[in-house]
Amino acid sequence: MTATPQAKRPGRPRGTSDTRNRILANARELFARNGIDKTSIRAIAAASGVDSALVHHYFGTKQQLFAAAIKLPIDPMSILIPLRDTPVEGLGHVLPAILLPLWDSEMGAGLIATIRSLLSGSDVSLIRSFLEEIITAEVAPRVDNPPGSGRLRVQFVASQLVGVVIARYIIGIEPFASLSPDRIAETIAPNLQRYLTGELPAV
Amino acid sequence: MTATPQAKRPGRPRGTSDTRNRILANARELFARNGIDKTSIRAIAAASGVDSALVHHYFGTKQQLFAAAIKLPIDPMSILIPLRDTPVEGLGHVLPAILLPLWDSEMGAGLIATIRSLLSGSDVSLIRSFLEEIITAEVAPRVDNPPGSGRLRVQFVASQLVGVVIARYIIGIEPFASLSPDRIAETIAPNLQRYLTGELPAV
Repeated sequence: MTATPQAKRPGRPRGTSDTRNRILANARELFARNGIDKTSIRAIAAASGVDSALVHHYFGTKQQLFAAAIKLPIDPMSILIPLRDTPVEGLGHVLPAILLPLWDSEMGAGLIATIRSLLSGSDVSLIRSFLEEIITAEVAPRVDNPPGSGRLRVQFVASQLVGVVIARYIIGIEPFASLSPDRIAETIAPNLQRYLTGELPAV
Repeated sequence: MTATPQAKRPGRPRGTSDTRNRILANARELFARNGIDKTSIRAIAAASGVDSALVHHYFGTKQQLFAAAIKLPIDPMSILIPLRDTPVEGLGHVLPAILLPLWDSEMGAGLIATIRSLLSGSDVSLIRSFLEEIITAEVAPRVDNPPGSGRLRVQFVASQLVGVVIARYIIGIEPFASLSPDRIAETIAPNLQRYLTGELPAV
């Protein structure tokens, strides 16, 4: 994509903010109703009265548009794609070691506000789609042993990570909430690894 | 406590509902502001313009009043006290085996509504007090090995249990949400047991 004159002015959004906001609102509504996989950029563009190319131009990939629609401060694939180089036997440690510091970073406050808002409202399906269609879909094929168990393995991992985030950043139980992210990651890593590659009941 | 004439009429609340609601509102406010330990029945009674004995008469113990104030459908001590007879080595299994079916029971919907409301609002401190001052305080002394580690051990357990509840009943990720409570309990039990009695980093 070639640079537009607007792209030369840092901090200036490309496109009118009305159009961008209309796209984001339609994206959020369609993602919440139909999930990520079943929502096309084309459908979001049509609902917004613009061309698909403009949506891509403003927001990039569908995952990036999803992230923008739920106000995630980061493209999830920018974290997940490098994980493809981590051996499966190391994921239990690397996953929390990468994810937990994000919550302690500057972007953490925004993440927490997003989660609280989604958990309480009718759009909780946006978190469900994110966990099922982005996280599970990305990691499950790598831990699908025996075949068919991968999705559940990843979702047990998700249950522990979601619990850490809620207990630490939303509920704030002490002394748990004051531990360093490293200490939490080290402590939960063997448990996550068991979910990913250990023997589980009826799996 | 002797039966009052009113107690003979099933379904009829004892005391006027105005007084009961005033006590509940004051209890909730004081518990949210000061926690459970630092809030006395006497203070709640004083704020409500009634005698402490009346508060006990209506609601029982402080834990029972707390449960009523946050609309818990069950007295937490009715679950925690029997656990005192479970050997520490069995808690990792017994805890989820007892707790998870509660969420699937008739009272589950009320619990979930309570959790969602507390997580999104300013009274999230009520969940914090519950986890710190009731759950942690009850279980931590039994797993305080080495000394000082008990609170953290219990809070890692809480992080996993909170995560299961959120992932299963609020976010509803599938197929995780459709597993039987037994299957979840069996799968997480060894991880909970590790938090309770295993060797943890820097513990």
